[in-house]
Amino acid sequence: MKLYSFHRSTASFRVRIALHFKGIPFDTEAVHLQRGDGEQHAEAYRSLNPQRLLPTLIDGESVLTQSLAICEYLEETRPSPALLPAGASAKARVRGLAAALAADIHPLHTIRVTQYLAHAFDIGEKERLEWTRHWIHDGLTAIEEQLSKSPATGIYSHGDSITLADVFLVPQVLSAKAYGVDLEHLAHITRITTRCLQHPAFDAALPVNQPDAT
Amino acid sequence: MKLYSFHRSTASFRVRIALHFKGIPFDTEAVHLQRGDGEQHAEAYRSLNPQRLLPTLIDGESVLTQSLAICEYLEETRPSPALLPAGASAKARVRGLAAALAADIHPLHTIRVTQYLAHAFDIGEKERLEWTRHWIHDGLTAIEEQLSKSPATGIYSHGDSITLADVFLVPQVLSAKAYGVDLEHLAHITRITTRCLQHPAFDAALPVNQPDAT
Repeated sequence: MKLYSFHRSTASFRVRIALHFKGIPFDTEAVHLQRGDGEQHAEAYRSLNPQRLLPTLIDGESVLTQSLAICEYLEETRPSPALLPAGASAKARVRGLAAALAADIHPLHTIRVTQYLAHAFDIGEKERLEWTRHWIHDGLTAIEEQLSKSPATGIYSHGDSITLADVFLVPQVLSAKAYGVDLEHLAHITRITTRCLQHPAFDAALPVNQPDAT
Repeated sequence: MKLYSFHRSTASFRVRIALHFKGIPFDTEAVHLQRGDGEQHAEAYRSLNPQRLLPTLIDGESVLTQSLAICEYLEETRPSPALLPAGASAKARVRGLAAALAADIHPLHTIRVTQYLAHAFDIGEKERLEWTRHWIHDGLTAIEEQLSKSPATGIYSHGDSITLADVFLVPQVLSAKAYGVDLEHLAHITRITTRCLQHPAFDAALPVNQPDAT
């Protein structure tokens, strides 16, 4: 497999964790989101992924986009070790947590969005940082509430095994830390993140451990 | 089943289509996103869904959130008629299209986001409309490119049967029209949308056909 990835891309980070967790060997093809006008806009990458977003995974003839869809594909084609629990309701809880992270937090503070705020609305750096912190804080606070209220929460987001909810949570938490978001009130989230980072798959997937990290 | 829904909520619209498509009876519990401070912020709803977003689906003891996770749950528990194609690569293509709509277009123009632009950054109505149009136009243009380049595109987004890609596409296209986004260059998208709207499940799920429509 070949993964088009950027070391600091949150969505690429998720797929890297899933690949390492399942022990799937892959090559990294770096796409630098901030070099020049952004390498994701170059024709070579756009022809693979018209959204010009990361990641893209190549598996034989298949060109796969969107981290949620890619992780489902990996789960289906390489089911062991599993990243989804047994049972439809349990799966829905895990997918719901992953989707809340993928759809309602991260898309609001990607590079293209903060660039639009700067260029179209002339929003300064300080306000852009407040924007980013607001959506991460708001989203993670809701997820903390979901985790704290549910008896299904265990050592990890769902029970005592790593699931897709953790795969999507940890990159967002590390991004929150990088932006200086206050995480003190997020007891479950910080506990789960610390635990996940002890797992070699999360460690191998860290931005700093990627071949394109500078 | 009971669906917490708002007639004009794009994410609720998706789940309504899936429920009707699979012939699953459900009651609608209206949550008015724009009445007062927004009924989604009331304690009664927040206790079900800490994200304070729509929709939430109740199935027996299960409380399900996030439209992507809910649709996967419906597909798993009521597999016929199917909304996902056979084969891991085909499923990944359909899920990738649905996720692009759910994660990279719609979250950028929800009420909470445009309210933040107005209140925190003092962005006027005209510029907020440009913001909304920009993200919808940009996102749908990329999806049109994906559809036009792939031999897997058929009468619908994937082959000649309705899939989750269509379930997620049509509400976004109708939202695009409501915001006055230029769709002329989106030949596949407009063709597929017209075809889907002839299906009774899409018709029954339309905002105007909901009990809370005014």
